Amino acid sequence: MKLVEVGTVAFDSIETPFGKRDKVVGGAATYISLAASFFVKESGLISVIGDDFPKDMLEEMDDKGIDQQGLQIRHGEKSFFWAGKYHFDMNTRDTLITDLNVLADFEPSVPEAYQNCDFLMLGNLAPSVQMSVVEQLPVRPKLVVLDTMNFWMDNTPDQLAEVLTKIDVLTINDEEARQLSGEYSLVKAARKIFTMGPKILIVKKGEHGALLFHEDRVFFAPALPLEDVVDPTGAGDTFAGGFIGYLASTRDLSFDNMKRAVIVGSAMASFACEKFGPERLLDLTKAEIDERVREFISLTEVEIQLVG
Amino acid sequence: MKLVEVGTVAFDSIETPFGKRDKVVGGAATYISLAASFFVKESGLISVIGDDFPKDMLEEMDDKGIDQQGLQIRHGEKSFFWAGKYHFDMNTRDTLITDLNVLADFEPSVPEAYQNCDFLMLGNLAPSVQMSVVEQLPVRPKLVVLDTMNFWMDNTPDQLAEVLTKIDVLTINDEEARQLSGEYSLVKAARKIFTMGPKILIVKKGEHGALLFHEDRVFFAPALPLEDVVDPTGAGDTFAGGFIGYLASTRDLSFDNMKRAVIVGSAMASFACEKFGPERLLDLTKAEIDERVREFISLTEVEIQLVG
Repeated sequence: MKLVEVGTVAFDSIETPFGKRDKVVGGAATYISLAASFFVKESGLISVIGDDFPKDMLEEMDDKGIDQQGLQIRHGEKSFFWAGKYHFDMNTRDTLITDLNVLADFEPSVPEAYQNCDFLMLGNLAPSVQMSVVEQLPVRPKLVVLDTMNFWMDNTPDQLAEVLTKIDVLTINDEEARQLSGEYSLVKAARKIFTMGPKILIVKKGEHGALLFHEDRVFFAPALPLEDVVDPTGAGDTFAGGFIGYLASTRDLSFDNMKRAVIVGSAMASFACEKFGPERLLDLTKAEIDERVREFISLTEVEIQLVG
Repeated sequence: MKLVEVGTVAFDSIETPFGKRDKVVGGAATYISLAASFFVKESGLISVIGDDFPKDMLEEMDDKGIDQQGLQIRHGEKSFFWAGKYHFDMNTRDTLITDLNVLADFEPSVPEAYQNCDFLMLGNLAPSVQMSVVEQLPVRPKLVVLDTMNFWMDNTPDQLAEVLTKIDVLTINDEEARQLSGEYSLVKAARKIFTMGPKILIVKKGEHGALLFHEDRVFFAPALPLEDVVDPTGAGDTFAGGFIGYLASTRDLSFDNMKRAVIVGSAMASFACEKFGPERLLDLTKAEIDERVREFISLTEVEIQLVG
């Protein structure tokens, strides 16, 4: 298996200024694996669900090459459930309910077929779970990407610090980069975070785009100004899935290719915002993705002849 | 006179996490005219000061080709004074003092030598003052750019609406674009604002860059992640000065050239943040500007071969 993704597969109840949806399918690994499936024929999913999770969604994921040997199904138990409400500005949200359910005592087990993976995406989860997956791999993958959030910085900083030493790419938002590093300047934050383990930092800024830092280089990926952001849930995970899926499909880890992967991830994330839950990722075509990537590129295209 | 700029010439007291400066030279037209002076040999300044304003600064501006026939000097009166304190995030600030002084009853008078100007920059000021300048011009300039802020949207919405019908380009920040249009989506906000007069909208987003909207086209200019933002005061005005200065020097009002002007304006604004007040604009060289513009361009440069 070239690519393995770890994260939640869950239910979300979401309220945005555009409406409300109860118990739609969600979870970081759902968005990651769906986004990546447009770039890799097959990937391996490590997660846990209860037997309340819809069979047809699992079949749809299977059809998209998302292997489920690493997905534990606990009978008589409930899947992880999150309910949240977005503010008018869509950049902030309140968590209303977090029911860990099956996630409370999740111990991931890496199937044999996943153990030689070249690309590992550690979606947002308890750092100890992310670490457990890393430790089960006999050979270090070519690229390990980790997504996390302020919750783990606040509550399990030591475990987070430990898993950070095992990864290549960290994706967090700007507030989190500042919190993790204690530096306001993102340039300084990146430099500090590089001393913690990651060689590459991606700062996700939602409607303001994303920044890619590597050594002294920086790349600024725009966000597409959208008519309507219907539901930003999963946009960050979709970004990560597009990013690692593109890298896994091209097998090129140069900075130039990372830049392309950030654009592809941003394009995928823009689709995720157009409908509630992962709906838009289910009916998306490769042609639409190419067209969107083109839009992203033309968004910043400019030529200047300098006189000086 | 090819380019005329209107706005405050004033004193600022500024406190940021990097320090404090009392009564440094400031004002929208100061930043605008200094930034534009790197691109046009001569421009005309319309403003008002008291006799407390430093003579050496006026001489320095004169050396840079900033004509002062339109600058009223009121003897025995004080220049406009603003004091503010930036929060740790540098994106928000509190106004501590606003002493209008000479600005309270400012009636701009457009010197004859300015009346045939092709480019007019209306810096942030009471809309009635901006309007008075427009009305004194016998021929409409080729391009009128207006900068304003939420204060005028709150307090003089009718005068603002009137002057908006007379301009080509509006520059405001994202919050203000949302307030003015009543639309959260910036795409929709731009469309609404186009019905109010402006044909072009530039949304300044500080550390998140800038968006240029024209008809159905949009361009996203990045902001350079800086090691330290020492003082963002005047960054928006410096942007506007670089933008209109570049346009006036190239005399090309195509969308492609507007994109270039936004990059140039962004580069100029990044310099303004490096030191307190307009200090950095005084010792800046053309070579530094070219180098910075190059950095801005490489910040978003990416090439993707689409397979699909």
